[in-house]
Amino acid sequence: MGAPGGPGPVIGPGQQTISFLSDYGLVDEFVGVVKAVIRSIAPDATVIDITHDIAPYDVRAGALALARSVQYLPEGVLLAVVDPAVGTERRLVAVETEEDDRRLVHVGPDNGLLASAVAMSGGAGRAVSLTNTDYQFDAPGPTFAGRDILGPAAAYLASGVDLAELGESVDPLSLLPGVLGLCRVEEDRVEGEVLWVDRFGNAQLNVGPEEMEGLGSRVAVRAGHLVRHAVRAHDYAELNPGQLGLVVDSYGLVAVVLNRRPAADELQLAAGDRITLEPAE
Amino acid sequence: MGAPGGPGPVIGPGQQTISFLSDYGLVDEFVGVVKAVIRSIAPDATVIDITHDIAPYDVRAGALALARSVQYLPEGVLLAVVDPAVGTERRLVAVETEEDDRRLVHVGPDNGLLASAVAMSGGAGRAVSLTNTDYQFDAPGPTFAGRDILGPAAAYLASGVDLAELGESVDPLSLLPGVLGLCRVEEDRVEGEVLWVDRFGNAQLNVGPEEMEGLGSRVAVRAGHLVRHAVRAHDYAELNPGQLGLVVDSYGLVAVVLNRRPAADELQLAAGDRITLEPAE
Amino acid sequence: MGAPGGPGPVIGPGQQTISFLSDYGLVDEFVGVVKAVIRSIAPDATVIDITHDIAPYDVRAGALALARSVQYLPEGVLLAVVDPAVGTERRLVAVETEEDDRRLVHVGPDNGLLASAVAMSGGAGRAVSLTNTDYQFDAPGPTFAGRDILGPAAAYLASGVDLAELGESVDPLSLLPGVLGLCRVEEDRVEGEVLWVDRFGNAQLNVGPEEMEGLGSRVAVRAGHLVRHAVRAHDYAELNPGQLGLVVDSYGLVAVVLNRRPAADELQLAAGDRITLEPAE
Repeated sequence: MGAPGGPGPVIGPGQQTISFLSDYGLVDEFVGVVKAVIRSIAPDATVIDITHDIAPYDVRAGALALARSVQYLPEGVLLAVVDPAVGTERRLVAVETEEDDRRLVHVGPDNGLLASAVAMSGGAGRAVSLTNTDYQFDAPGPTFAGRDILGPAAAYLASGVDLAELGESVDPLSLLPGVLGLCRVEEDRVEGEVLWVDRFGNAQLNVGPEEMEGLGSRVAVRAGHLVRHAVRAHDYAELNPGQLGLVVDSYGLVAVVLNRRPAADELQLAAGDRITLEPAE
Repeated sequence: MGAPGGPGPVIGPGQQTISFLSDYGLVDEFVGVVKAVIRSIAPDATVIDITHDIAPYDVRAGALALARSVQYLPEGVLLAVVDPAVGTERRLVAVETEEDDRRLVHVGPDNGLLASAVAMSGGAGRAVSLTNTDYQFDAPGPTFAGRDILGPAAAYLASGVDLAELGESVDPLSLLPGVLGLCRVEEDRVEGEVLWVDRFGNAQLNVGPEEMEGLGSRVAVRAGHLVRHAVRAHDYAELNPGQLGLVVDSYGLVAVVLNRRPAADELQLAAGDRITLEPAE
Repeated sequence: MGAPGGPGPVIGPGQQTISFLSDYGLVDEFVGVVKAVIRSIAPDATVIDITHDIAPYDVRAGALALARSVQYLPEGVLLAVVDPAVGTERRLVAVETEEDDRRLVHVGPDNGLLASAVAMSGGAGRAVSLTNTDYQFDAPGPTFAGRDILGPAAAYLASGVDLAELGESVDPLSLLPGVLGLCRVEEDRVEGEVLWVDRFGNAQLNVGPEEMEGLGSRVAVRAGHLVRHAVRAHDYAELNPGQLGLVVDSYGLVAVVLNRRPAADELQLAAGDRITLEPAE
C-alpha cells in the first residue's frame, strides 16, 4: 500500500476492532444480538461489518470474501460465522496470525472458512479450540454459535483476554484447509472457474494475469454452451458499449466485465461455474 | 448466562448504548438519518442495530424480535420504531425497566411493540408520553417519528437527560399490552402458531418444551392441509437428511426444523400460520 | 430545528463523523473494506451509514438521498460513492462547506452526486481534486475508488489532515452541477416528476406546497395513462382506507400517498416518472 508511513495509530487494550462476517443476513436480529453480546463484554471495542449476506452454509463464498478483505483489516479480531454445524464434531477455534506488525486473531468454525485469510495473514501461530465454558453463554436450547461462543470469544479477546484462556491448544496443522481450486493452464488454453459475481455483475475468475500470457489480446470465453469474444483491457472505461472485457480487477485477479453493465448476465455466470479461455482466432 | 462474573464494565454518562430496531429497511436513508440525529445529540453513544427489516407496519414481528433480543441487550436505551401512526391519537412513550442491575429505557410507539420486551426486563417502572417539544425536532411537514421525536428522545436519554424531562408521566398500566397468543394444550394435542420463520427456514412455534410432554418421540405436524411426521431431537445434527425435526431452539421454544435445509418450505409455513401437533401413531 | 440550544458537543480532532453513502450494496464486502481502511487510518472516527443501496450507477438517486439527509448530518466528512467511473477523465474531489457553524467536507466523484448537498450546506468553499497519491492506497489492478482513494481521503480528513494536502486546488465553479429538474406550473396545472418512491410506497414529487395553490382541495393525478383523484391532507391518518392523498411530506415536498398502503403501486409510479396535477372538476 502506498499510504503514508510513520507510526500507526495506537490502540489501547479493549479498544480493538472486531471485523465480523457471517451468513446471518440482516433481516433477522442475529447480527444485532451478537453485537449486543460483544458490547456487554467489550464496551470499547468497535465492530466492523464485512458482510452478513453470505448465502446460508456457503463456506466457500465466505472464505473468498475474507480472502478479498483480510489485507485491509485493522489489527484485532476477525470473527467469521458460516455453517458452524453446532451439535457435530466440528470445532470452533481461535487462530493467531502476525505479519508486518499486524496481529490478528481469527475466530470461527474449523470448516475451511478461515483457511485462506489465515494463510494470507502470515499463517497460523497459536491456535485453540473454544472449549472453556467460562467464556461462553449458556443457551436455553442448542447453541447459537455466534451469540453463545464465537461472539463472546471475540469480545473477550478484544478486551485483552489471552487466546490460551479460551480453550485447549490445538495443532495448527490439524486445522481444515481451504478448498479453493487452482486454474489449469494448457498451452494456449486456461480452464478456470468463477470465484465471485459482484453486485455490478463482474465475474472474478481464479485466474491471475500471468496465466493469461499465452492468450493474446482477443480471447474466446466459454461457459457452458455459450461462447463470447472478449478483449483484454486495463480498465472498464476502455471498453465500448456492449464489448466484453477481461481485466485484472482491483484484487489482482482476472475478471470478465462489461462497461457499466453486468457481464455475468451476458454469459449466465454464477459463482462456481467452470469457464474456459482460449485465443480467439 | 455462564459468562464470568466480577464487576461489569463501567459505562459513563453519555457513553451508553442505544439498541435500535425498526421497519425502515436499509434501502432508504431513514436509519442513517436517525443515527445522524443521535450522533449530533449524543456523540459518545453507540448505536447497535438489532434489525431494520421488520416488514412495514408489522408490530407483532417487531415485538417478537425484541422479545428474542432483549435479554442480551446492554444497559442503556432500546429504540424501536414500527408503525408509529403519526397524526393519530397514538402516544409515543419512554418506559423504564430495571432487573438484575440492568437499567433499560424502552422508547417507541405505544402500540404493543414494546410490551413483551418491557415485561421480560422486569416490567414497566416510570413511563412518560413524549410530549415535551423542547426535546424534539420541527418537521417541515408531518412528523418523521424516528428522526424528529423518538431518535432525539433516545439520544437525550443516552446523554443523561432524565426520563421525566421528556414529557408527561403516564400510568404504566395504561400502556397497550402485547398480542402474543398462547398455544392450547388438549390431552395429546397441541394447537399453536408459527411465531417466526428465520433466514434458515426454521419455524419457531409459540410452544414450550413442557407443552410437548404428552406427544411422544414421533409427532404429526399439521399445517393447513399438509401433514408431516417429525422426530423430537436435541440438535439439528441428529436429523437424517430430509428428516423433519422438532427441537427446542436456541431461544428455548419448540421449532420445526430440517438439518441444513429450510423446514418452512417443506410445510409452506409463514409467521402467523396455525399449526397442530399430535402423536404420530 | 426545535432542539434545545446551548453549546453543542465538543468533538476533538480525530473523533469526527464520516457519513457514508454508496451504491455498493450490503451483499458484497465493499462497504466493510472501506470501513476497515477508514478504521486503520482514523481509529477514533465514527462512520454513519446513510444508505448503501443506491441502485448501481444511479447518480441522481444518490444525490437526492444526500439532499434529504444533509441537513441532519453532524459536522465532519460526507463520503459518497456512486459511479466514480475510474479510468476516465472524471475527477474525485473534496469540497468544503460551512453554514451555521457546521463544517462539512464532501468527498466523492465530480459527477453531480455531491452538488445538491453542497448547495444545501452553504455552497462550495475550498475544493481539491484528490491527486496526491501519498494519501491513497495502491491497487493491484484498476482502482477501487472507495477503498483506495475516497475512503482514505475521508479518513485522513477526519483525522485532521487539511483539505489542501489531498491534491490540487480546483475552482468550485468548475464542479459539475446537479441535474434535478424543476416542476412547471401553468395556471391550474402542475407538471412534475417523481423524485423518490420510499419503502412504504410514498411517491415524493419535485413539487413544493406553494406550487399547489391553484389546484383546490381535490386534485386529479395523471401518470402515464392512469388518472386518479386525490385529496389534499395534512397527515396520512386523515385519509380514508384506499383514499389517495397529496400531503406535504416530512421533507417539505408534496407526496402522493395512501394511509398504510403503497400509493406507488396504485399509480404504477417509479422514480423519474412524469406526473401531472390538475384540479378535479
